[in-house]
Amino acid sequence: MSKKMNQLKEILGEVSDLHHAASVLDWDQNVNMPPGGSEARGQQLATLGKIAHEKSTSDKVGNLLADLKTEFPDADSDEGALIRVSTREFEKAVRVPAKFVAKQAIATSKAFESWIEAKNKSDFAIFRPHLEEVVELVREYISFFPPADHPYDTLLDDYEPGMKTAEVQQIFETLRPKQVELIKAITSAKQVKDGFLYKKYNEKKVWNFSEQIITKFGYDWQRGRQDKAPHPFQTTFSVNDTRITNRYEANNPLATLYSAMHEAGHAMYEQGSNPAYERTPLAGGTSLAVHESQSRMWENMVGRSLPFCEHFFPTLKKTFPSKLGGVKLKQFYKAINKVEPSLIRVNADEATYNLHVMLRLEMEIGMVEEKFAIKDLPEIWNAKMNDYLGIVPPNDAQGVLQDVHWSSGLMGYFSTYALGNLISAQLWEKINEDMPDLDDQIRKGKFNELLGWLREKIHIYARKYDPQDLVQKVTGSKIDSAAYIRYLTQKYSEIYEL
Amino acid sequence: MSKKMNQLKEILGEVSDLHHAASVLDWDQNVNMPPGGSEARGQQLATLGKIAHEKSTSDKVGNLLADLKTEFPDADSDEGALIRVSTREFEKAVRVPAKFVAKQAIATSKAFESWIEAKNKSDFAIFRPHLEEVVELVREYISFFPPADHPYDTLLDDYEPGMKTAEVQQIFETLRPKQVELIKAITSAKQVKDGFLYKKYNEKKVWNFSEQIITKFGYDWQRGRQDKAPHPFQTTFSVNDTRITNRYEANNPLATLYSAMHEAGHAMYEQGSNPAYERTPLAGGTSLAVHESQSRMWENMVGRSLPFCEHFFPTLKKTFPSKLGGVKLKQFYKAINKVEPSLIRVNADEATYNLHVMLRLEMEIGMVEEKFAIKDLPEIWNAKMNDYLGIVPPNDAQGVLQDVHWSSGLMGYFSTYALGNLISAQLWEKINEDMPDLDDQIRKGKFNELLGWLREKIHIYARKYDPQDLVQKVTGSKIDSAAYIRYLTQKYSEIYEL
Repeated sequence: MSKKMNQLKEILGEVSDLHHAASVLDWDQNVNMPPGGSEARGQQLATLGKIAHEKSTSDKVGNLLADLKTEFPDADSDEGALIRVSTREFEKAVRVPAKFVAKQAIATSKAFESWIEAKNKSDFAIFRPHLEEVVELVREYISFFPPADHPYDTLLDDYEPGMKTAEVQQIFETLRPKQVELIKAITSAKQVKDGFLYKKYNEKKVWNFSEQIITKFGYDWQRGRQDKAPHPFQTTFSVNDTRITNRYEANNPLATLYSAMHEAGHAMYEQGSNPAYERTPLAGGTSLAVHESQSRMWENMVGRSLPFCEHFFPTLKKTFPSKLGGVKLKQFYKAINKVEPSLIRVNADEATYNLHVMLRLEMEIGMVEEKFAIKDLPEIWNAKMNDYLGIVPPNDAQGVLQDVHWSSGLMGYFSTYALGNLISAQLWEKINEDMPDLDDQIRKGKFNELLGWLREKIHIYARKYDPQDLVQKVTGSKIDSAAYIRYLTQKYSEIYEL
Repeated sequence: MSKKMNQLKEILGEVSDLHHAASVLDWDQNVNMPPGGSEARGQQLATLGKIAHEKSTSDKVGNLLADLKTEFPDADSDEGALIRVSTREFEKAVRVPAKFVAKQAIATSKAFESWIEAKNKSDFAIFRPHLEEVVELVREYISFFPPADHPYDTLLDDYEPGMKTAEVQQIFETLRPKQVELIKAITSAKQVKDGFLYKKYNEKKVWNFSEQIITKFGYDWQRGRQDKAPHPFQTTFSVNDTRITNRYEANNPLATLYSAMHEAGHAMYEQGSNPAYERTPLAGGTSLAVHESQSRMWENMVGRSLPFCEHFFPTLKKTFPSKLGGVKLKQFYKAINKVEPSLIRVNADEATYNLHVMLRLEMEIGMVEEKFAIKDLPEIWNAKMNDYLGIVPPNDAQGVLQDVHWSSGLMGYFSTYALGNLISAQLWEKINEDMPDLDDQIRKGKFNELLGWLREKIHIYARKYDPQDLVQKVTGSKIDSAAYIRYLTQKYSEIYEL
């Protein structure tokens, strides 16, 4: 390896170490930290972030990258990919002044506080001036970058490298009417019963069952663990230490099982990343959407399938005889797939979820384009909810104030949730082509071949290929909604006898 | 505050953040980390250490310190103390070349592996060449510093700032014969019975009881927590997040209670550190010996006292009726204070502990002075054990190989354990003067006044005063063995009816 490549890798390695150290501190803050620790922890995270930023934006890194681009022109080699991805991150990072980052940190910190108050009081007016400032800063952020086809492209690119707003809009334009139509058909059909899901299930037994499931999936406990936290999430400290968190909600106890499958889907992606990419920007998952395709596949394609129920439901029944004793397999299967237009995105079912996301994308684009005044957001939100899902939030808390993202300045993020669903269906069709007996395998509780496929086709490449290129490479086409529509239609036609 | 002081504090603050981040990573490694995580974790810790070292040894820091020394000449002010302590650390850090640190890290890593093998096989010959190298490196380390009265001074100063080898030797020379004499008297007396301590106590109940005790002591759970780890230790992430770890040993179940008291003693010292010193080198505890005086005071002066038993034993008896039902208070008190010369330092009782330490100090000085050949260590060790404790290890594992310290290059450390015992007795006499009803308070389970005294006289000063100066300030004399001898003699004369 060239001397300059070694120098670059040494710096990138330190930056990676700093980011991973910050992830440990962040995980600890969510899982273990006593209340007193928060102020110092914020300071420690700020210092790690500052040093990582300084190191990754130094002139030395810029010069090394420029020189190495000539030395490794093959974009398809690992070295070429490393230079390409590192250059993109470098060029982004140097464009954003440290002063702006600090200003934004203060503004979003205040916006977050005001969002909590506004949500508690269900009063958008409290949040409004802060959101106005946040959006102003998002527009300032965009201004640091060269003009794109659409100003929103700059935001999207931070989460889905290479993806264009127009592409996403086109995908969603095709998807939306079909999904709206399907939901209308479902809501006209006879509703399934799911009361038994919401009884009082023993917390420890549910937790243990969640671990049984993801152990069978292939989550590697030698390189991970599951802990309790206020919200489920997945985090990576290295390819050999990727952890998940989970929670138990008394009013929805079995959600713990699905959160575990979801987060383990993320974690198994990270566990399958090429170890040769460790301590470089190529390590990890290539984008939020591809990441979400993995978590949603294990949660939904696998975890909400009939074969899955055939394998796990008998044991679940034995574990909770008083709750599920009288429940038949098909009843359980239908219950966990119940479709019902609802107000809250994070509780939405497979059939309605994407519509929540599309609504948010349209709102964000409207804000960035200044087509929507911030004061009008609640009204626009409610109108769209009515259009897409046929329901109207009774208040701001259950409407425009429900998500934390905007208060933290996260814009450009939401669409990745829906894109992930679409990719998961595209992959699922391909996997079923390659493994015609997949249903049988799942029915027998065998997941190693499925995981092996994902490892070989997706995980091992880590961040070497951008999301659209990876999806194209694996499925033969770019991100597209057709497979997901086929998946939903087939599944719910059967469940709701449409 | 001066502009330069602000600049200095900003850099020191970042260095402190890096050290605390490393502490979180280290704690996680001991408490949570899955086995796969160790390689990356080592790398992350190395990076944090390297950056902290670079930041704290920069010319900028050196220049600021030099300028500020003139600006803040008052050594007794907080600023003066900050400059003094920071300058000492700076001058030490710049003397040791980064290359040497890396070389030592590799050598001690190998030495540690060989020590594990040697201990398992109880064969000093396996460890010998590695220890020779470690000692050679320790001597090289000493050579980076200006000649001191004794070469060992340089090592000692890293743990007990300002302390001289000659001082420690003089203290120990006075102490040793008296302690040897006391032990001889005890071993001639009738031995106490303690079989009931080693029954099968329920782990969860023991753990909960340990937390009841330290809660009463005043350990602040809003700013700390107790977790399971292979070895008990205390660690600090900030004044508002100082944690302890503990373990349960089936063959010595109640040791969990005493480990909790010991580690909580360390943690309460850190929790009482002046918050104004946060993110500076003045935060924390002033030396290992003063730290140990706090842990040993809560563990022994308090936890092994008759008033403590009077308060806690009735509840302990109720918690473990089948184990302690027939045991009388005085029997319990005597059992937890049983003296018996034994081979292993970490299991030694109060009366014999210091002799284990003195033996090690003499060995270390002999190695540093090249008075002892490494090959002769087992023989020298065994001879000293016979002299001091009247017993001879049957093998190297229970003798010269028992402690991890030397394999990690930690020399200069051991004597702080004994010095801590001595300081704890000096403080204890002073506290009893100031609080004549201390025994009564302990008997009632009231510890707030005791903790308040320690906070006010010791904890709040953090690292502002060097250990000898602090002990002098609080007790009126420097570190001295007389109080400890009085304490031991009184306690054991009564227990063993000498």
